[in-house]
Amino acid sequence: MKEKSQEIDNFLVGLLHDVVSKLVKEVKMNKNVNTKSGPNDLVTNFDKSTEKGIVEIIKEHYPDSSVVSEEGFGDDIKSMSGLVFFVDPIDGTMNFVKCHDSFASMVGVYLDGEPFVGAIINVMQDKIYHGGPELGVFENDQRLSEPINQELKEGLVVISGPMVLKNYLNTQDVVGKSSGIRIFGCAGIVFEHLLTGKEIIYMSYLKPWDLAAGRVLCESLGLSVARVDEKPVDMLQSQVVIAGTKKAVSEVLKTVKI
Amino acid sequence: MKEKSQEIDNFLVGLLHDVVSKLVKEVKMNKNVNTKSGPNDLVTNFDKSTEKGIVEIIKEHYPDSSVVSEEGFGDDIKSMSGLVFFVDPIDGTMNFVKCHDSFASMVGVYLDGEPFVGAIINVMQDKIYHGGPELGVFENDQRLSEPINQELKEGLVVISGPMVLKNYLNTQDVVGKSSGIRIFGCAGIVFEHLLTGKEIIYMSYLKPWDLAAGRVLCESLGLSVARVDEKPVDMLQSQVVIAGTKKAVSEVLKTVKI
Repeated sequence: MKEKSQEIDNFLVGLLHDVVSKLVKEVKMNKNVNTKSGPNDLVTNFDKSTEKGIVEIIKEHYPDSSVVSEEGFGDDIKSMSGLVFFVDPIDGTMNFVKCHDSFASMVGVYLDGEPFVGAIINVMQDKIYHGGPELGVFENDQRLSEPINQELKEGLVVISGPMVLKNYLNTQDVVGKSSGIRIFGCAGIVFEHLLTGKEIIYMSYLKPWDLAAGRVLCESLGLSVARVDEKPVDMLQSQVVIAGTKKAVSEVLKTVKI
Repeated sequence: MKEKSQEIDNFLVGLLHDVVSKLVKEVKMNKNVNTKSGPNDLVTNFDKSTEKGIVEIIKEHYPDSSVVSEEGFGDDIKSMSGLVFFVDPIDGTMNFVKCHDSFASMVGVYLDGEPFVGAIINVMQDKIYHGGPELGVFENDQRLSEPINQELKEGLVVISGPMVLKNYLNTQDVVGKSSGIRIFGCAGIVFEHLLTGKEIIYMSYLKPWDLAAGRVLCESLGLSVARVDEKPVDMLQSQVVIAGTKKAVSEVLKTVKI
């Protein structure tokens, strides 16, 4: 199994570097961007064409796998059996459109429902985070060490803007018990920060492709990923997720009110 | 006057590059950090020693100037007459301590109360933003063009966490009228984003050394800097400030309730 995960890891690193990074830079020149339904639901033609390309390459290399992706070029799956790829070609679309920075591309791979391999590329910084439970986690070629298991008060937290502004699930109490809040508008960037110890909590409502790669990498590096209702994380549905150090996730689970 | 501002601009670029950047990298190795009064009021020994060094160098080069600085190594001034330097050696102390990233050093210079020259260095990215009304604004050696004068709905806003979580001054309505909120924990980084068009509004309670350099650079690049109470900005006191595109600042002033 280690050989298989190493092979898929190599495949994902190549895929994200060669396909996504090049295309994103190309489209950044063109700024060929349009909006679908207002300023908070931006989708780019680029997003769709990139996803289509990624899905095709995965299907070519792994014809027996399933692919789940945001814009619907993948499969509509009912079970997690076998090899399942979750694809988010542009995570942080608003940042992509407004800032031309701070966005990511992500692919998470699960084998019979278990986290197997994940890769997140911070496109504009050209840094790729990749690995899995059998491989460890790498920033480009450098192996990352496990972040210190800090308590909530010791670190910064990231909570989705709409959630924390309305104090949904008592999230403002989570902020109050921490060293402060940050909001970046991109799940992939936040997972990068968790893996490198910059923040210690991420709480947000995440779709399967928002969560898939980050969950693989976090759990492979000694971090915890939990549902706010403490049920098992379900990769077939969207859910409110808390990711971070084991100590801080445990404190957040005691602080939130569902 | 243009010669004088060019001379001070060169001085600030040299100062921030040679003194601050080197020292920050040095101390980052040592992580010689202590806390003064709890996790939200972190001050480092480094911060103090850096400030002392900067103040000494300014006084050596400009003996007739006044210097205002956070840790108190400068002067206690009652008027803005003559040349006044505002120094913030580490802006974004929490980011410095927790993330070892996303912090800045800033110096803003005023002549007889008017914005004259400013410089902000994004230390870990080694990018310096500098210039003034007579010089224009530069990112390193490259001249920046004026950001597009976007409306509030077209862009992202940054509002200080404590302010927006409590809906202080009706700030949540500002978020609702925009494309979304970001929180970074460092005024210097946000001014960088305004200058490069990544966000279009920054609203926060700022001390003179938090505001000085950013105000010079924003106003030199066609952006607007206003007090929330619409009184003239006063560099001798702290105040709630709204900085950003002219159109968006005008909309925010109509949206906030004081």
